[in-house]
Amino acid sequence: MSRSLVVALSGGVGGAKLALGLSRALAPKDLLVVANTGDDFEHLGLSISPDIDTLAYVLSGLDNQVMGWGRRDETWSFMETIATLGGESWFRLGDRDLALHVERTRRLKAGETLSQVTRDVCRRLGIAVRVLPMSDDPVRTRVLSDEGWLDFQHYFVRRQCRPVVRELVFEGANQARPQADVVAALANGNVRAVVICPSNPFISIEPILAVPGMRDALAGCGAPVVAVSPIVGGRAVKGPTAKMMQELGLTISAATAAQRYGSLLSGYVVDPADADDVRGLSAAVKTAPTLMTDLATREALARTVLDLADQIAARR
Amino acid sequence: MSRSLVVALSGGVGGAKLALGLSRALAPKDLLVVANTGDDFEHLGLSISPDIDTLAYVLSGLDNQVMGWGRRDETWSFMETIATLGGESWFRLGDRDLALHVERTRRLKAGETLSQVTRDVCRRLGIAVRVLPMSDDPVRTRVLSDEGWLDFQHYFVRRQCRPVVRELVFEGANQARPQADVVAALANGNVRAVVICPSNPFISIEPILAVPGMRDALAGCGAPVVAVSPIVGGRAVKGPTAKMMQELGLTISAATAAQRYGSLLSGYVVDPADADDVRGLSAAVKTAPTLMTDLATREALARTVLDLADQIAARR
Repeated sequence: MSRSLVVALSGGVGGAKLALGLSRALAPKDLLVVANTGDDFEHLGLSISPDIDTLAYVLSGLDNQVMGWGRRDETWSFMETIATLGGESWFRLGDRDLALHVERTRRLKAGETLSQVTRDVCRRLGIAVRVLPMSDDPVRTRVLSDEGWLDFQHYFVRRQCRPVVRELVFEGANQARPQADVVAALANGNVRAVVICPSNPFISIEPILAVPGMRDALAGCGAPVVAVSPIVGGRAVKGPTAKMMQELGLTISAATAAQRYGSLLSGYVVDPADADDVRGLSAAVKTAPTLMTDLATREALARTVLDLADQIAARR
Repeated sequence: MSRSLVVALSGGVGGAKLALGLSRALAPKDLLVVANTGDDFEHLGLSISPDIDTLAYVLSGLDNQVMGWGRRDETWSFMETIATLGGESWFRLGDRDLALHVERTRRLKAGETLSQVTRDVCRRLGIAVRVLPMSDDPVRTRVLSDEGWLDFQHYFVRRQCRPVVRELVFEGANQARPQADVVAALANGNVRAVVICPSNPFISIEPILAVPGMRDALAGCGAPVVAVSPIVGGRAVKGPTAKMMQELGLTISAATAAQRYGSLLSGYVVDPADADDVRGLSAAVKTAPTLMTDLATREALARTVLDLADQIAARR
């Protein structure tokens, strides 16, 4: 019996786009998306999970493609009003988006796990593939910057990534347990490929890998681990990936992203523009257009990634 | 020096309308509105204080006069979305209204009192008069009905007052302390009148009077206590006042409402249509149009109430 399950590790928008491509290339039961929760935070008394939400909105087709984040058909009455009441308005929560945060917060307080809430939300949004958090235990990315320690969203949204990053820590990661169904899926001998989506390595993928047992479970699942480079033509498509590389004293390149995953990586998909950068890597490299501008390019990139994984598996 | 402070006890919309009239008839420093908190509740993880909110919206001119409750210029994206997520949607929370609940919940959890939050919200909404809750301790009205015990909002909103009421209890009232600034204001010898707004006696005013010490503080303040009848022409203007009188075995009349306040009451303003009903009362009765259809009638009724109080005081 051939292996069928694809496990994808995803952060924000770039990751969700590839997850959507994978969801179109695979039967629903054959895709499990593991979401970073290192950028989860508590804001206005609400439990917010930005990467899970991005996955939920992108996979359900509810994402706001004009803004590039949040929900489509959004309204902003809540945000306008909370500002007049003296509440914090630097993290913009649309009225529809807010419903998800309020409902999740209520359920978490009632004792449900983040996994249970995520599963139910995805089901109600009509998402057929599985989306699970990396852990049900709190992990919080914190940034040591030239302005001192910042909670992740304060760095990312409030300060718009302007502070210079010196170090990243994933608070709580040492005590966190990897999500049990993810561990079980990785252990059952049915994994076809692990896909590391083109998310920011430092803040989207490394928090997932920092959960004790997760890296070993991925390495030991018997399937190729294939990443897609978040660097295209020597630049980050979106967000602070390139800026962080520079601030952390690393070369801005597709190779640097691959090196963050070390021996875990068996395959790497990079844009043709970055082919020269990755010649020294031990991972099998495939070049393909990696800019996902529409649904067709997302699905095409997903198929490229799966092909590379299958080629690597066939060679073993 | 003449006494100047008017203390008004208010429940929902009817009470807020008279409070608005009083705010136009008095200097801001001369009005203190005490809000019922017996219908406060926790919903979707949020702390909701319907009567305080109604006062805040009506006194700031932000009330929705088309719906008769909530805020003007309201949108409903949150409510539409939470229903699709399987959340409870029987208590309708507009997107703008929601901002107040989220911000209040956050501040209460951070350790502020309901009084502090109310004061700040009113200030930010541009309300010059003082609005305070009857207590900072939780009091929760519960309804014994032919369907068993119901939390107040489940009876009032979810079941639309349809169950037959057998008994009302104000849970927590025995342990609640009256709001300290209200007690101090009543004790300082400067009270010109206590006004009991035309709110439902059973569920809006009696919870206030049930807070230990409140009734004595009102009775002992040295000023006339004047109520406006919530019954006009033998019927309730709005809400279940008449239905409750009947279900509790009482006559539906303006006199019944006055009798609920017993010896506390020294003056009573009723509609001309109800003059015959109140002949036996010991309180001084004044007839005047009590339907508040616009700002002018609210202010006129306020002046009528103050005149009656001043007449009673002059006779003493």
